[in-house]
Amino acid sequence: MSTASVTSAVGTLSERFGDRLVTNAAIREQHGRDEGWHDAIAPDAVVFAESTDEVAEVVRTCAEHRVPVIPFGAGTSLEGHVAAVRGGISLDLTGLNRIIEVNIEDLDCTVEAGVRRKQLNDRMTREGLFFPIDPGADATIGGMASTRASGTNAVRYGTMRDNVLAVTAVLPSGEVVRTGTRARKSSAGYDLTRLLVGSEGTLAVITEVTLRLYGIPAVIGGAVCSFETLGGAVNTVIQTIQLGVPVARIELLDEAMVGAVNDFSGVQLPVAPLLLLEFHGTETSVGDEAGTVEQLASANGGTGWQWSTGTEERTRLWQARHDAYYAAKALRPGTKAFPTDVCVPISRLTECILETRADIERSGLVAPLVGHVGDGNFHLLVLFDEDDADERERAIGLNQRLIERALAVGGTCTGEHGIGYGKLEFMRIEHGAAELAMMRTIKSAIDPHGIMNPGKVVPGR
Amino acid sequence: MSTASVTSAVGTLSERFGDRLVTNAAIREQHGRDEGWHDAIAPDAVVFAESTDEVAEVVRTCAEHRVPVIPFGAGTSLEGHVAAVRGGISLDLTGLNRIIEVNIEDLDCTVEAGVRRKQLNDRMTREGLFFPIDPGADATIGGMASTRASGTNAVRYGTMRDNVLAVTAVLPSGEVVRTGTRARKSSAGYDLTRLLVGSEGTLAVITEVTLRLYGIPAVIGGAVCSFETLGGAVNTVIQTIQLGVPVARIELLDEAMVGAVNDFSGVQLPVAPLLLLEFHGTETSVGDEAGTVEQLASANGGTGWQWSTGTEERTRLWQARHDAYYAAKALRPGTKAFPTDVCVPISRLTECILETRADIERSGLVAPLVGHVGDGNFHLLVLFDEDDADERERAIGLNQRLIERALAVGGTCTGEHGIGYGKLEFMRIEHGAAELAMMRTIKSAIDPHGIMNPGKVVPGR
Repeated sequence: MSTASVTSAVGTLSERFGDRLVTNAAIREQHGRDEGWHDAIAPDAVVFAESTDEVAEVVRTCAEHRVPVIPFGAGTSLEGHVAAVRGGISLDLTGLNRIIEVNIEDLDCTVEAGVRRKQLNDRMTREGLFFPIDPGADATIGGMASTRASGTNAVRYGTMRDNVLAVTAVLPSGEVVRTGTRARKSSAGYDLTRLLVGSEGTLAVITEVTLRLYGIPAVIGGAVCSFETLGGAVNTVIQTIQLGVPVARIELLDEAMVGAVNDFSGVQLPVAPLLLLEFHGTETSVGDEAGTVEQLASANGGTGWQWSTGTEERTRLWQARHDAYYAAKALRPGTKAFPTDVCVPISRLTECILETRADIERSGLVAPLVGHVGDGNFHLLVLFDEDDADERERAIGLNQRLIERALAVGGTCTGEHGIGYGKLEFMRIEHGAAELAMMRTIKSAIDPHGIMNPGKVVPGR
Repeated sequence: MSTASVTSAVGTLSERFGDRLVTNAAIREQHGRDEGWHDAIAPDAVVFAESTDEVAEVVRTCAEHRVPVIPFGAGTSLEGHVAAVRGGISLDLTGLNRIIEVNIEDLDCTVEAGVRRKQLNDRMTREGLFFPIDPGADATIGGMASTRASGTNAVRYGTMRDNVLAVTAVLPSGEVVRTGTRARKSSAGYDLTRLLVGSEGTLAVITEVTLRLYGIPAVIGGAVCSFETLGGAVNTVIQTIQLGVPVARIELLDEAMVGAVNDFSGVQLPVAPLLLLEFHGTETSVGDEAGTVEQLASANGGTGWQWSTGTEERTRLWQARHDAYYAAKALRPGTKAFPTDVCVPISRLTECILETRADIERSGLVAPLVGHVGDGNFHLLVLFDEDDADERERAIGLNQRLIERALAVGGTCTGEHGIGYGKLEFMRIEHGAAELAMMRTIKSAIDPHGIMNPGKVVPGR
């Protein structure tokens, strides 16, 4: 890409979008930065689009000038997804913030890509419905679809992969494609919806998303339980799932994280692995399920089981989980938090975590753990001093070894954060040569000039 | 494709595979025919492969000679998926029948593509596990993955889309690709697994499949209920799902089908819309769920609610469903059954079925209905006399109008059977030009010489 082509794309877009094209350094800088630890890389300009047609205009202009387009939502990604690694135009989609259609009887809705998760759920509450995918951050639905996000509810409700019925997206040619229908299932051709979900803007810009919704459960129960050993906690989860107990959330905090929460929140949890559970259903079913899990926990060395279906008490029980991120950061104020994201078959979770804890010890780093343990997905928050090059290298090394460990037992380098440019090198380790070649073939066929969020997801493209 | 190239591919394969390459007319004919109503088209030869490596050899040979390869499993597809519309080699995968690995703690297994559904479940029962996808026929797992099959359990357990974790597949180049891992979820790049699931052998030949498994529920409850109106039955289903009751199956038989069952099985069900339900869980949860649905049914004009958690009684209650296919065929012995397969948003199901019933009346055809009503997916079994050209045209016309009706309300032409060559023309109606072009781009990029099951799924490729 030449400077001339950028200048001329920016000129054309400026004429069309007026003050909705911004080249101000602070705004550009903000659009090149996400919430991860990777270096921010500012785009050449930011366009604030407000409709699918406007997105198509921007993409067409960028295509003509062979200038990269990088979609931007809430900026809550973690692997440098929004960084303009090859320059270009950041396409801010927060102006696409309309909830287009809600079909209460069909439990689905169609929203624009810039609608945020909490905005959607505020609206859905009125109908007695909710959208369960909860990655923590108040991300946009478009961003969540693009990174195949999930979070604490995935053990019951699945991930964005399972909950996106259809998308509208702008292809590199500027053409608008609508994939899928509102039917719950279909065998009519290639699953383009699933191809775009998780493609991180490298194939198309998602502008609308049709989502599955769920009725708000009549009763929500919360529970916590400490465990003598990590294996006891994980075995409880394995047995719970084998029995088909439809738990809505099962989260794990390791000793280090529980210690951090005790310090941060002034609570006095036993410094031992802690499971937090949530049950959705009726008074009867929730009680039944909680009773089953309590028995399993007890047989696996669980102690201090507490549970409640009252909102306040449930919130109190789950406070440790809600505080975890800030409690972890407070262990070393002023440092950066480097979130890891491996996901492994659950039978390998205990060994993977124990080996990782030993590795953390050896590395001298502080890295408490929180996990969506029902899925085998866990995060370390590796705290490191940005100005300490050695510590930074140790953090990177720890993550590298963690990923190798996860891959060796049949896992993945990222359960829910995605690749961005931060995990690009791990694609070569996780995927075989034929698989990577197939991804490159698809990328090159759909985006022959490589203008769609280049330098992300597919190594060498 | 020239005759010379076929002859030379068959020669090479014959040398390599000996008597596992068959050109006998009866065997070829059988491999060009499925269980649908479309014309059979025999391949030039059949190769019985026994491993992924052998599949790769066949594909490489076919690629060299630009000869089509058509995967064949149980031959239970319905839209001419196995027909050699452009000639070529039928690749019989039933020799790939090993259950490679079962991971009880992780609730997953890896099987070869030729393993049949019942074979898998016979093996899983020993472990207290089961694989829920049940398309009726004893299909191969590879075939079910290729057509994105589902069936009666999908309302709770999802379809093949949701239950395939990973596949091994042979690309047109003869390269072997392994997509996905055993991790429950991943955000590591393009979802090649979902791209291959439902691609009907047009991109690659699936040779191994990694599946999710489930614990056999402690208690299974069955229920039936008749309804004054179709709307009452459908509203019961809508409300059941809105309340989050995790029913395992909800099937609908219309009056015509109930009448057929009464005649066939000598039972005396009220000739009215019939819902059949199944609940999976504990004694408590199943009772709770059944009680909830019974109340909803009653408020919607349901009568004659019967339910049981006993195996024999449950089987008796569900007998009408099990008999439906044969009962329908017995309405006009000797005719062909033309199965339709639309899927619509459930709020539009009542109108779609009522309009269709009126259309059936006008058409003078016999076409009882059975539906996976929780998903909005229903089948007519249109009975027609093969030798009666007019009746055949009327059956085709009925299906055409049914599909147009389904598409007009946001549905799909096929919920679970797939496209094959039988529904190829409907791809142009269901999908927009940009979407079809995107499918063609992918097909051409991955299979540039068009050797993979050509003339299926993607019109014009």
